[in-house]
Amino acid sequence: MTLLSVHAAQERLLAHFKPVETETLPLMSCSGRVLAEEVMAIDLPGFDNSSVDGFAVMAGDVRDASPTSPRTLRVVADIPAGASPAVALASGEAARIMTGAPIPAGADAIVMVEDTDFHQRRAGAAAPSSVKVFKAVQRGENIRTRGMDVRAGEKILPVGHALRPQDLGVLAMLGKANVKVYRRPRLALLSSGDELVDVDAPLPPGKIRDANSYILSTLTREAGGEVLPLGIVSDHREAIRARLNEAVEQQADILVSSAGVSVGAFDFVREVVETEGELDFWRVNMRPGKPLAFGRYRGIPFIGLPGNPVSAFVGFEVFVRPALEQLAGRERTSRPRIRVKLAEPVESDGRESYLRAVLEEREGTFYARLSGHQGSGNLLSLVRANALLIIPAGVKSLPIDAQVEAWWL
Amino acid sequence: MTLLSVHAAQERLLAHFKPVETETLPLMSCSGRVLAEEVMAIDLPGFDNSSVDGFAVMAGDVRDASPTSPRTLRVVADIPAGASPAVALASGEAARIMTGAPIPAGADAIVMVEDTDFHQRRAGAAAPSSVKVFKAVQRGENIRTRGMDVRAGEKILPVGHALRPQDLGVLAMLGKANVKVYRRPRLALLSSGDELVDVDAPLPPGKIRDANSYILSTLTREAGGEVLPLGIVSDHREAIRARLNEAVEQQADILVSSAGVSVGAFDFVREVVETEGELDFWRVNMRPGKPLAFGRYRGIPFIGLPGNPVSAFVGFEVFVRPALEQLAGRERTSRPRIRVKLAEPVESDGRESYLRAVLEEREGTFYARLSGHQGSGNLLSLVRANALLIIPAGVKSLPIDAQVEAWWL
Repeated sequence: MTLLSVHAAQERLLAHFKPVETETLPLMSCSGRVLAEEVMAIDLPGFDNSSVDGFAVMAGDVRDASPTSPRTLRVVADIPAGASPAVALASGEAARIMTGAPIPAGADAIVMVEDTDFHQRRAGAAAPSSVKVFKAVQRGENIRTRGMDVRAGEKILPVGHALRPQDLGVLAMLGKANVKVYRRPRLALLSSGDELVDVDAPLPPGKIRDANSYILSTLTREAGGEVLPLGIVSDHREAIRARLNEAVEQQADILVSSAGVSVGAFDFVREVVETEGELDFWRVNMRPGKPLAFGRYRGIPFIGLPGNPVSAFVGFEVFVRPALEQLAGRERTSRPRIRVKLAEPVESDGRESYLRAVLEEREGTFYARLSGHQGSGNLLSLVRANALLIIPAGVKSLPIDAQVEAWWL
Repeated sequence: MTLLSVHAAQERLLAHFKPVETETLPLMSCSGRVLAEEVMAIDLPGFDNSSVDGFAVMAGDVRDASPTSPRTLRVVADIPAGASPAVALASGEAARIMTGAPIPAGADAIVMVEDTDFHQRRAGAAAPSSVKVFKAVQRGENIRTRGMDVRAGEKILPVGHALRPQDLGVLAMLGKANVKVYRRPRLALLSSGDELVDVDAPLPPGKIRDANSYILSTLTREAGGEVLPLGIVSDHREAIRARLNEAVEQQADILVSSAGVSVGAFDFVREVVETEGELDFWRVNMRPGKPLAFGRYRGIPFIGLPGNPVSAFVGFEVFVRPALEQLAGRERTSRPRIRVKLAEPVESDGRESYLRAVLEEREGTFYARLSGHQGSGNLLSLVRANALLIIPAGVKSLPIDAQVEAWWL
């Protein structure tokens, strides 16, 4: 069994995952979902409109207007936002207009209400029959022209983009009532080990509580996946087989198990997987989480994570999250990565190491300090961390101020 | 009407929000929720256990063991993970033990399976009747002692902490099946303006689509709130009153409206709010989003955001998100803030300005470039942005390489 680099293990694993099918959803249900169609623009704004409350005019009519020599125009229309003006201005005429309202035919500029003798901005107020203009305007002044913000045909959002609030906003503007997105990938989650009991069960001597179901379920949902919880199975072949078959019936896209802390505890899962598929053990040059099981059960990719909660967490981040994101059709990872400086020297053991750390910003640079002892059972140091530091393979120690990559948690 | 600084406006507004009631939820439902009780530790691990697969021994018995002069011990028990050993070792005796299993009485060290003549790690394999040990062990070696990771009584998580996957994991380990959290604050959301139509309705000339409902709903949910959607109301007093009363009946904690693009469009909302409460207009020294309405309707705090989508977005981030987080009992904001350098000179107008920008990392420093023209109607530049830059009040221009604060989007 050769030792794989983390990168090689990721590549080998990701070759097994293809984006899932798409579905078309109402826009309001698309938050966080991944686009499966390219979105092209229509002109925005869709029509020339006023950027201020004021009066639509012909610029030529008020060319010489000034406070001492105002021009008086006849107000022939009142155009609130949302109106569709039927009027066409002739020379000497103006239309009262509100911000966002369409420019009437004939008008080529808007005089702000502040530059007239009419100061009433309340929507309920009637328009005057005439208005004095105190200031000249350029042609086009205070007009937002059709297509000014976005031109029809421009590419707005690519396939693979995960939709944020502002993206939903622009899709709404474009009239995309229904959006083609990838469905959420389904991850079936199994905890195995005779020593595990759930949080609400009595805790007999020698047993420990299953933390991984909580960690891995929540990470999966955060990464855009849906969880099919298979629960804790004890070390009995038939129980394990029944749960895995349940996952197959529910059309899981990926099976993930975390073993109990014992290597041996995983054996029953391995035996069952191998009856209807295959399972390899990979030795990955990483810490924590060196042993990784990968295979297929009845055709569905299977990832076996270590049982220690910290190892399971890191294994999820390094292998399961990328797999989920690839299933979800996502173009890039959701975990923000940055480069930081070490605030203290760090020892490593030559494996690619994922260390729990606290980042603090000083003057635009983030400094990292370890958040506690790095034993793989010490979940508390992960709770106290806000980042994972990645110490590359081959490195045994790094001095203060060395730069390393970090993932925000 | 004096001009308020952003900070002064935030302080004035936040004085009106107190944390909502708490509720007790099953652990699996607590992802992202805010803790309303302090969580204290129990000892973790809860009992002394083996950190390896091997044999529990008395260290004294194998003091002189070596490959050439192994010590042979009688194997009197087999302790898988999850077992509760009844045996007590006497001198000359050993117990086969799996990782995570409790240490039997009498034993004070664990010999790794690799340092014995028994190499079978599979869980199903029977324990041998005797074992040869090739290597001495120190007292305590390969034993994870009770309380090593966490000591009973240690504070684990404070009130006000928003729960992440790893936090749920530690709560599971501690046996917290039910957790006291703040309930989600309820935000009632109203879009007003005769010019607005929903994304799935026909678009008559002069009308625009309501983008703000999508932006503000999604932001609210991301910030941990629940949305009571009041929809689009046209400029009719009775329609507005009916929707606001609906929000009161549904026990909204906060009312948020975004006006149509016109100032005037907001008048009807203002009139209605003032019949059963009060509403002030604040002039905030910021861009975009200078006008901010704040008041109460039938006792519920009311925030009126501008209608332009970018102004509404920024107004949410600066005022509504902090209010929601305070309602939710949250100790600190969810929006990560960093200091970045300008990759191009930036002009401002002296107001505290929130500019849409793209951050790119080079050598551990983030450089910011504007993502497009900064008109408040140009949602596309927000879609293309991954951060907001904050240019302080009083600044009219900043050179390349100047440091500014940025909020990740």
